[in-house]
Amino acid sequence: MTDMMSGMQRVITLDMEGVVTPEVWIAVADHTGVDALRRTTRDEPDYQALMDYRIAILDEHRIGLSTIQSVIATLDVLDGAREFLDELRGRHQVVLLSDTFEQFAGPFMDQLGRPHLLCHRLHVEGDRVVSFSPRVDEQKRRTVELYQALNFHVTAMGDSHNDVAMLQAADAASFIHPPDGLPERYPELPVARGYREALDWIESVG
Amino acid sequence: MTDMMSGMQRVITLDMEGVVTPEVWIAVADHTGVDALRRTTRDEPDYQALMDYRIAILDEHRIGLSTIQSVIATLDVLDGAREFLDELRGRHQVVLLSDTFEQFAGPFMDQLGRPHLLCHRLHVEGDRVVSFSPRVDEQKRRTVELYQALNFHVTAMGDSHNDVAMLQAADAASFIHPPDGLPERYPELPVARGYREALDWIESVG
Repeated sequence: MTDMMSGMQRVITLDMEGVVTPEVWIAVADHTGVDALRRTTRDEPDYQALMDYRIAILDEHRIGLSTIQSVIATLDVLDGAREFLDELRGRHQVVLLSDTFEQFAGPFMDQLGRPHLLCHRLHVEGDRVVSFSPRVDEQKRRTVELYQALNFHVTAMGDSHNDVAMLQAADAASFIHPPDGLPERYPELPVARGYREALDWIESVG
Repeated sequence: MTDMMSGMQRVITLDMEGVVTPEVWIAVADHTGVDALRRTTRDEPDYQALMDYRIAILDEHRIGLSTIQSVIATLDVLDGAREFLDELRGRHQVVLLSDTFEQFAGPFMDQLGRPHLLCHRLHVEGDRVVSFSPRVDEQKRRTVELYQALNFHVTAMGDSHNDVAMLQAADAASFIHPPDGLPERYPELPVARGYREALDWIESVG
């Protein structure tokens, strides 16, 4: 409880997919059998290019937003994610910083007790996903910097390449269950393997 | 649902005390019988001066943090506030922007389902409230501007003088059950009388 009595007030920023929820596009690929939708930021690090590609594939296969939403409706958040967030939200302010979309996130947010989520929005006409443009470029890094401008100590956790800028901008940062190979590229960042380890680490850096 | 499909993504910023919770210091005055604690920002618009005064009164009457917290533990959030926030959080991102303190807000946040809250922290030694300094000056106005820098459309609602800078910075703004006299000073700002009216107004300005 030291944190409540002295030092800086804290915001914890967390990636969403792979950290507290499953990966949506993998689930859509599984459900539709369209393997092209398995392409991820590991294959195409440029997120705009990846989303343009995904939207073209959706068009080609006539996969509408309602199909994606019906897949998402069947997905559970990761085991223990709700309890992890509840414990964390009882202690600090928590923000999910994600490159997902408002149109995807609702069912996950219901399961997680509606944490604060900053993400993007797809441009949709009827049921057709038309295009993607980010709400703002580099939103993860910029959001960390804006909370810092409000005099918060920012602790960040993520699992993938597109989290690295956020992790590097934060006052304290760690990977959480990252894929093989990623931590080796950033030896300065610690790795939490599971929520209990993450909670302990978060309390240790406040 | 227009909002989910086009236009800008939205953040709704709300004051806490008087908007979704009762006024803490009034309750502490009631409980302790120390009428000096009824002084509010209406009597002393300089919040730092007001808090310095309150802390001196607490000292004089040997009222510790635990006493204040035990009063807060008996308080209910305003009638309908949870339902109001739940409905709003199902549609948009919601942030409570308050000049309250981390040490006061916990029981209210539990009742309200842990919305995102940006507030201050009292400097406390043992059970004694020692001093107050804001996390950042003008946090309400600055937070609105930072969400705008992240390309959110910000809608703000508050009930008192110290919300006016936030209301004036926002893309859309309204008072919600303000005290007599305040709306007349800001005739450009609409007034919502109750949560249903607030929800309808919020949907009308997105």
